[in-house]
Order: sequence, then structure tokens, then C-alpha cells
Amino acid sequence: MTQPKLPQGFSAAGVSCGIKVAADSLDLSLFVSDRDCIAAGVFTTNRVVGAPVIVSRSRVPATTVRAVVLNSGNSNACTGQRGIDDAEKMTALAGAHLNCAGEQVLVCSTGVIGRFLPMDKLTEGIPRGHAALDSTPEAFHRAARGMMTTDTVPKQISRTLTIQDQPVTVAGAAKGAAMIAPNMGTMLSVVMTDAAITAEQAQSMLRHAVNRSFNCISVDGHMSTSDTVLLLANGAAGASPASPEELAAFQQTLNEVCFDLSQKIIRDAEGAEHFVTIQVSGLPTRDEAFRIAKTVADSALVKTAITGNDPNWGRIVSAAGYANVPFREQDCTLIVNGFLLYESGRPVAFDEQHVSASMATGEVTIDLQFKLGAESVKFWTCDLTAEYVRLNADYTT
Amino acid sequence: MTQPKLPQGFSAAGVSCGIKVAADSLDLSLFVSDRDCIAAGVFTTNRVVGAPVIVSRSRVPATTVRAVVLNSGNSNACTGQRGIDDAEKMTALAGAHLNCAGEQVLVCSTGVIGRFLPMDKLTEGIPRGHAALDSTPEAFHRAARGMMTTDTVPKQISRTLTIQDQPVTVAGAAKGAAMIAPNMGTMLSVVMTDAAITAEQAQSMLRHAVNRSFNCISVDGHMSTSDTVLLLANGAAGASPASPEELAAFQQTLNEVCFDLSQKIIRDAEGAEHFVTIQVSGLPTRDEAFRIAKTVADSALVKTAITGNDPNWGRIVSAAGYANVPFREQDCTLIVNGFLLYESGRPVAFDEQHVSASMATGEVTIDLQFKLGAESVKFWTCDLTAEYVRLNADYTT
Repeated sequence: MTQPKLPQGFSAAGVSCGIKVAADSLDLSLFVSDRDCIAAGVFTTNRVVGAPVIVSRSRVPATTVRAVVLNSGNSNACTGQRGIDDAEKMTALAGAHLNCAGEQVLVCSTGVIGRFLPMDKLTEGIPRGHAALDSTPEAFHRAARGMMTTDTVPKQISRTLTIQDQPVTVAGAAKGAAMIAPNMGTMLSVVMTDAAITAEQAQSMLRHAVNRSFNCISVDGHMSTSDTVLLLANGAAGASPASPEELAAFQQTLNEVCFDLSQKIIRDAEGAEHFVTIQVSGLPTRDEAFRIAKTVADSALVKTAITGNDPNWGRIVSAAGYANVPFREQDCTLIVNGFLLYESGRPVAFDEQHVSASMATGEVTIDLQFKLGAESVKFWTCDLTAEYVRLNADYTT
Repeated sequence: MTQPKLPQGFSAAGVSCGIKVAADSLDLSLFVSDRDCIAAGVFTTNRVVGAPVIVSRSRVPATTVRAVVLNSGNSNACTGQRGIDDAEKMTALAGAHLNCAGEQVLVCSTGVIGRFLPMDKLTEGIPRGHAALDSTPEAFHRAARGMMTTDTVPKQISRTLTIQDQPVTVAGAAKGAAMIAPNMGTMLSVVMTDAAITAEQAQSMLRHAVNRSFNCISVDGHMSTSDTVLLLANGAAGASPASPEELAAFQQTLNEVCFDLSQKIIRDAEGAEHFVTIQVSGLPTRDEAFRIAKTVADSALVKTAITGNDPNWGRIVSAAGYANVPFREQDCTLIVNGFLLYESGRPVAFDEQHVSASMATGEVTIDLQFKLGAESVKFWTCDLTAEYVRLNADYTT
């Protein structure tokens, strides 16, 4: 696989400024466009939001954005007015070096909640980040690493499509690990493209992509205060999707980038040993299918059964039963990794050893089929392990 | 503490009939009244319910109930029509020995989902249970043990009050451990009284007591298919609460019995090391306070922070933020074990070692105060430990 590359006109950097305890950890990233770009964003729906969410949310959609500045190790959430002042100061510092207004810079922070940002370290680090800006895959990689908290690997992708005979690139970086749930977990993602699109297109296409990707994953059901997905489009490729076919192709590529990044988050979830796909079909509305999928995904008993490669299908069916979606048991059929376990409300004889062995591969597909309509949803989650408990029982202290 | 005793006119038994793997485990219980009694019940709101729930729910409120027959080790849930036939057969078997109709017997089952009941074992066991019936505290204790699944201790209580110069007793037994969440977890409880009350009183008083006890606890947020709380009132004490004061006193005693049993369930929750009380106050409605309390209680990140004695208050505040209750950060104050951690939306300096040491006692009180109204709720939960994962990663296989 080739290394993910930045779209034309973008540069990036990841440096260490000492917010994280480990001295050499990258914890400050910049994504910069060499010209004004269209920017769109989708943010957490938590009532308690980080200061960077308040600041960035107020600045998109926009047409003159130049950069995103991000730090890890401290989420600048639950920090009151001082937190908002600090987030604005981060953007002003970045803007000063980029010769633009602070308002043209977006900001994201991830890490511990409720601590004030070490502004001395950021004041010293942002100029170094600016000096390190480069358009190489290596710089993109370092920027992706600078966003990581308990992630074990950076998450990046780039895809290229052709519009009006021009190669157009869509690339993104994301961080995840835990506190992941719709509508979104502590995940941050910056997606960039050199296509020319309008702010309205950017916002609606990003929302569409996020609803089928980042909003369909859950690690632990805990919705973060800081989730942010940003899309920057700078038009440097000299091509603009205009026809319905071109717009559909661009949307498809954007979907693929968001989908890939969201899957990478689940595959790197804290302590996870299983990658779980939940398909729910045959409901009257997508929202009902979604509620069932999310309820199954967030059940600690379903998760721990998967940890143990245990085809304990009663936990799955009973979780579906409390999703507040009306159905009768006889409307419901369950297939796990292709094995029929429960058919139209009745248990089916099956070989537990076979099903368990298929689960031990680390890939589990839960297929819940109803007979009540034509809507369906796909959702992704992971199992719940003792390692997740260990990681989260001692995070701040 | 004196041993809990049965109310007048009640007898009980707990025997082993071989449903559980361990040969000497008690797994079949009977609670019997020597005369017809008033019976009320509150049941799971899961769409997928066990066959015993279907059968018992159809038989209450009632005025001629004689007994409850319960088994552990198999929940007879997700078993279709055959499961319903089996549950009815259990009541008919018990009724045959009690010289009453099967319809006068209620039934509960708890344990693995999706397996047919071993009716041969029950057919052999129910007569032995009948032969073992006794009104002693020891028989009550054995009946409480016969309901246990992964519970480590039986859960019982009896309380006595005086009505019309007569001593009136309210006694109950319960089982819990996991799959506990409103509206209710896999918990079963049988509450008995020798007071004389009407079926309507029994139903409304039981509902009131359950709403403030069993429906305010959560181990893992997974709502079971089998939760049942039954109240039997046989009038053997020769006293009937009639005046508003007497009714209030009886309600209070019933509340205390249900409260005590629900607290015992949390204290014996699978793998739990901390007993957690969540108080949410100052909301416009009780439902909003309840939603915040339950969302905090069910957060894996809050639970694991408590496991680690970690005063990671950001996880608590951010969980409150996604409970779908409108509030602003400045409306919210958080106190943990008496230590102010977050005041009107701003972090407060505090001694982490002191707070952590107070959490290490195993008792944690989370006090979330809002300024939006006069309603409040109390909710109880436990932490999430590696032991919980171990217990639940290998339960059926």
C-alpha cells in the first residue's frame, strides 16, 4: 500500500511541545492550505462541549479558512471562559505565522477533560510546528501521529478520483481509541481535498459521509465533548465536481475516506480483540434500525460474550428488545458469522464449537433481520476486554 | 441482625433439581400461601420477554393466587410456544400438589436464554419442593438461595409494622448480579405480606415501590427479558391498612423492603468493587433527572474511573451532557464524596489524593446539582472491573 498523500496545496506538521507526559510524543499538529479554502464541520451533540468545539463550530461553514491547529493530551473541555480564550489564542498564534487572521484557523483538542491548556508550551510549539510544515507523506504522517491519544497507530488515508480530466485527491487523518459513540466519540478527523466545491456542498456532503461512517461506530457508548470532523477544500486541483455524476463520484470518494478512517478507529479501539459489524435490516425506518444496532453495540453483555467467542445469542436478541423499537419476537431472525442461531422468534439448533471458532478469528458479523420494512443500517463496534478496563481505570491519575 | 422471617400464612422451600451444573446447587424455589392471596406484579419492558413473564403477567393483578414457583439456571426466554407451554406446565405441576388450579400459581425463571427447560427435572423436583415447604427462616433462606444465578449471597429482608394493633410483616427475597438495568435487570423478587390489601392497592403500591428501588439500579445497563417483582398479600395478620396514615406506613415499609433488596443486588453485582450512589437534583422533571443519572451510571468510562479510584470528573460531566437533557455547562455543579470538583461549569482546584482515598473506601457518591428546577432522583450502580469481563466472557459455553 502506498503512503497516504496530501491533496495539492496542503501541507502538514506534527511536533512535540510537551503537553503529553512522554517527552518525545508528538502532541501538536497543523494542517495548512496555501490559499483560502472552503471549510465544513460536524461536531459532537453533547451538551457539554470542549472550548475548541465552541470556537470551531462558530467558524464553519466558511470560505476563507487557512488551517487547522490540533493538540492531543488535553481536550480543553469543561474549562469555562478561560478555555475559550485559550482556544482562540491557539488560532491567533497559528494565524500570526500564516499571515492570516486567527478567525481563519480552526482548532481541535483531545485528551484529559477539565485541565487548562499549558499555553506557554503551545506558544513555544506553534512556531516550531509552522517551521516544520511540509507537503510530503512523512509530514502528513507526523501530523496524524500528533493527534493520537491512546491510539496505537496513526489513522490516515488518501484517495484519488478524476474530475474533468484532473486528478482530485481526498485525504484524511483521524484519531479515536475510546469514548467513541454516536454522535461521535472522542474522535477528531481532518479531511482535505483539492477539489473546488462550495461551502454548502462541503457541509451537506460531509454530513452525509459522517452519518454513514463516524456516526455508525461505537467503542464504549460514551459520547465525547470534543468530537469533530472537518472538511477543507482548497480547489488547488483546478477541478470542480459539477454534473450529478461528478458530484456522486466525489461524494462516493468522500464517503470512502470517512468510512476507512472510522473503521481504522474501531480496529484500534482500546483493548479490543474483535472487530464487530452489526447489520440490522427490515425495519420501517433507518432510525429504528440504527437504535437497535447501537443498543446491541453498546451492551456490555454482548461485548463480553464476543470477548469470550461465546455465541450467546440471547444477549443480542434481548438487547434488541430494549432498544425501544416495537417488534414481536417472531419478527426477528439472527445470523452470526453466517450461522443461523434464532429464526422468527425460535431458537435453532447449531454447533456452538463451529460458531465459536468463527468468532475466534476476531471478525464477528451480527445480522439481525426483521420483517417490518425495507430500511437497514450497518454499524461497527468492538468487544469489551479486561484490557479496556485496565486502560480506563487509571487514565488521569 | 435477626434472620428474615416469612409473614404469617406463608411457607417456602428451595431444593436442587439438577438444572444448574453444580450437583448440589439449589435451583428450584416455592413461595406458598396457605390461603388465596392478592397478587400484583411489575415486569420487564423488554420487547423480548421470557415465557414465564408472558404467563405470570397474564395472571396479575389477581385475588386467588396461592404460590410462586421459580427456577434458576435457565430463563426459559426466547423459547417460543414450547417455552410458554413449559411455563404453564410448571404452574400446573405446582398447583396439583397445592390442590389449586395451575392458574393460581405464578412462575419465574432466570438463567441462560434460549434453552428449553428440562421438564423431566422439574417434574421430579416440584414434588420434592412441595414436600420441603416450611414456614421457618431456614426454609425462607433456602428459597432465596434457589433463585440465585451468579449471585454470591442470597438477598432477603423482613420488616414488621403495626396496623390496628396487629403486627404486620412484609418480607421479600430477590436475585440479581448482572443484566441489571431499568426497567429492571435480570432480577427477580418475591415480596410477601400478611396484611390485607386489595388487588388495586397491591398493584399501585408495588409500582410505586419498584419505581424508587428496582427501577433505580443498574449494573451494566442491559435490560433483561425476565425481570419480575411480585407482591403477594394473604391477609393472615388480620389487619388491613385503611386510614391514610396506615396506608402510608404500609407503603413506607414496602418501599423499605424493595429498597433494601435492590441495594443488596448492587452490593453483590458481578465483579463490583464499588457501591455507587448517583444523586441528580435541580431539574424541571424527575424524568430528566433520571435520564442523567442512568446515563452516568451506564457509562463504561465513568465506571472504570471509579474502578481505579480516579476522580476523573470530566467523564461524569460529559456523560450527563449526552443524556439528551437540555442544560448549559454553567448550570451544572459536581460533588464527589463531598468534594467539590466542578462548580457552575468551571473546574475547581482539589486534592486528587484525598478524593481518590475517599473513593478507595468502596463507597462513591456522585452528586450532580443543576439549577433548572426542583426535581431530583437517586440511582445506584457499581463499577466495571476486569472480573466482570471475565465472568461474562464465558457464561454459556
